[in-house]
Amino acid sequence: MLMQLKRPTLLLDHNKCLANISFMAEKAARHQVVFRPHFKTHQSAEIGSWFRDFGVTRITVSSVTMAEYFAKNGWNDITIAFPLNLAEMDEINDLAGRITLNVLVENPEAVEALAKWVGHPVNIFVKIDAGYHRTGIEVEKQEEVLRLVQIINSKNKLTFKGLIVHNGNTYQHANPAAILNIHNQSLVKLRTLKTFLLEKGIVPMLSVGDTPALSLTENLDGVDEIRPGNFVFYDLMQQKLGSCRYNQIAVALACPVVAIHPERLEVVIYGGAIHLSKEFIPDENGNPTFGEVVWLNEKGWSEPVGHTFIKSLSQEHGIIKTTRENISRFYPGQFVGILPVHSCLTTNLASRLITLDGQAIDTIRSFTDR
Amino acid sequence: MLMQLKRPTLLLDHNKCLANISFMAEKAARHQVVFRPHFKTHQSAEIGSWFRDFGVTRITVSSVTMAEYFAKNGWNDITIAFPLNLAEMDEINDLAGRITLNVLVENPEAVEALAKWVGHPVNIFVKIDAGYHRTGIEVEKQEEVLRLVQIINSKNKLTFKGLIVHNGNTYQHANPAAILNIHNQSLVKLRTLKTFLLEKGIVPMLSVGDTPALSLTENLDGVDEIRPGNFVFYDLMQQKLGSCRYNQIAVALACPVVAIHPERLEVVIYGGAIHLSKEFIPDENGNPTFGEVVWLNEKGWSEPVGHTFIKSLSQEHGIIKTTRENISRFYPGQFVGILPVHSCLTTNLASRLITLDGQAIDTIRSFTDR
Repeated sequence: MLMQLKRPTLLLDHNKCLANISFMAEKAARHQVVFRPHFKTHQSAEIGSWFRDFGVTRITVSSVTMAEYFAKNGWNDITIAFPLNLAEMDEINDLAGRITLNVLVENPEAVEALAKWVGHPVNIFVKIDAGYHRTGIEVEKQEEVLRLVQIINSKNKLTFKGLIVHNGNTYQHANPAAILNIHNQSLVKLRTLKTFLLEKGIVPMLSVGDTPALSLTENLDGVDEIRPGNFVFYDLMQQKLGSCRYNQIAVALACPVVAIHPERLEVVIYGGAIHLSKEFIPDENGNPTFGEVVWLNEKGWSEPVGHTFIKSLSQEHGIIKTTRENISRFYPGQFVGILPVHSCLTTNLASRLITLDGQAIDTIRSFTDR
Repeated sequence: MLMQLKRPTLLLDHNKCLANISFMAEKAARHQVVFRPHFKTHQSAEIGSWFRDFGVTRITVSSVTMAEYFAKNGWNDITIAFPLNLAEMDEINDLAGRITLNVLVENPEAVEALAKWVGHPVNIFVKIDAGYHRTGIEVEKQEEVLRLVQIINSKNKLTFKGLIVHNGNTYQHANPAAILNIHNQSLVKLRTLKTFLLEKGIVPMLSVGDTPALSLTENLDGVDEIRPGNFVFYDLMQQKLGSCRYNQIAVALACPVVAIHPERLEVVIYGGAIHLSKEFIPDENGNPTFGEVVWLNEKGWSEPVGHTFIKSLSQEHGIIKTTRENISRFYPGQFVGILPVHSCLTTNLASRLITLDGQAIDTIRSFTDR
């Protein structure tokens, strides 16, 4: 890494990223499930293109805007994994005329709106809530799901494809056993619902989504498709959950050191909430950690510097708390790396990523901020 | 407000914004202090231009990039209120050759670097820590400040201008009396330091900065310059601190309603962490609030809907918690307004703002994402 850094810069370790993609692609192949990665983490046409070498042809996104961006970049089978926004029907119709478009619904109003406003075939997944309680029909409400499927199937242009679930509640448990337990229990419930529909002559796909469980599990019993997203970069939150190791985290924010306060064992960096986001992990005392510090080197970055983390963030400042042993290793003008708590939000804040050999990688920002 | 909204859109009430600027400009005039507003909140050349009608010719920014953007847009007296980033000396030198540039230092290394690398006159403020403990020289360390001023004055191109302080600790106290107490006590200490320097034949300006205290105080005794930023839009955090009223908040994020869960009294909106930021305010039970809901109407938006707030945010989703009385007032396809917790971070996430008569206002994103 010999590039000249000037200001907070989001570094991408290309090899770690490829290894992460390979890991998940192999798991999907081993279990013979469709690998439809979620592209909301990187939001980059170029990084998206790396997935093609692993046989990926179908993707997931979380907004119509993101679908438009990736459709423009050659992806022609896209699932918008977000409740239908009725204000974007024109854009959805336009996309449906150009690509294989899959959308989510969870109520009859959305189905009726699609039937009324869309002139091209659209595939429909029914959003199921298997315990996260963010949105979707609760997995136990079999009759409600059946009624919705029947309404979908009564519409000319709409094709019911299956059930889609995101167990975001795996993020609320910082250990692999709890994560796997949530995953396994949700699959039991989802298979029950699937069986109920099969008995009614309806054949649903089952699409599941969260990175923590999909990183850890080898149980994909009854699953037809996986949609993990964050695994492409991973981050500190995943490391704390136990779903990745430090050396799988593929992004680090390089930040200039601008001031040192040895008496408080604190270091001020140029790198704040507008670079990292204010996502944090509470430590054992409930104090927030906004990132952990690594040393930058020729090959990328080191393992985390012990007991050295971002304790607070303002708009452009970050305050690193460190130890008596480590404080003398910091100096003004130095660049240090920060492993982000939530790589999706950190990447969303960057206009571009820079690989370790200095190549700039554009993201959707070059598309939306036009 | 008759524009057609499609997705999360940051609305700006132009009249509220002008009233906020007028309020602070009048306070500065009344106290005969320089009004050097911080432009990090709006980060917009157009909104910046509105300040000119109030006689503003000097501004504050928080990064070299922001200084470059506003210099390009006609501002020629800019203070970069951020510890010196040694990696941006070329850019600083270039700016110093084009405009009146004021920078902050807090250690001799930064002064030596400026003296070595900058070929044009630069004005220097010494960063003082009057109790916030983010960065700066502690206000009691008179001799350390004096030594730094002497080093500055020994350099050909550098001119010592004064002492600069930001009492960010006012944000840690949710009542006006505590905020005013911090402000008043810091002014006592700063005047002591100022007097010490005057006795040594050095005449320092005193520049102070935080929106909470500057919104509330009429005590600017010994102050020469004020640099508030957030007041241009205000936000929920300022309202909770008591430094503004709800009807002074000049921005609201318009968000589509995408799903309703009456049994949980929850509403799902398209509008998440990538639109609002994850800044939150804890309620009396320690639960986070990421924004409060207002109804959009022809004149802009209503007062907050009672007991109706964002309880959680993921990347693109927001979950509104509401009451039994209010749940029936939400419907899919509706747009509701969200008063942001921290308008600086919310604005930073938007490519542009839209005024109530539908005019698009670009921000620095059109400059940095080029």
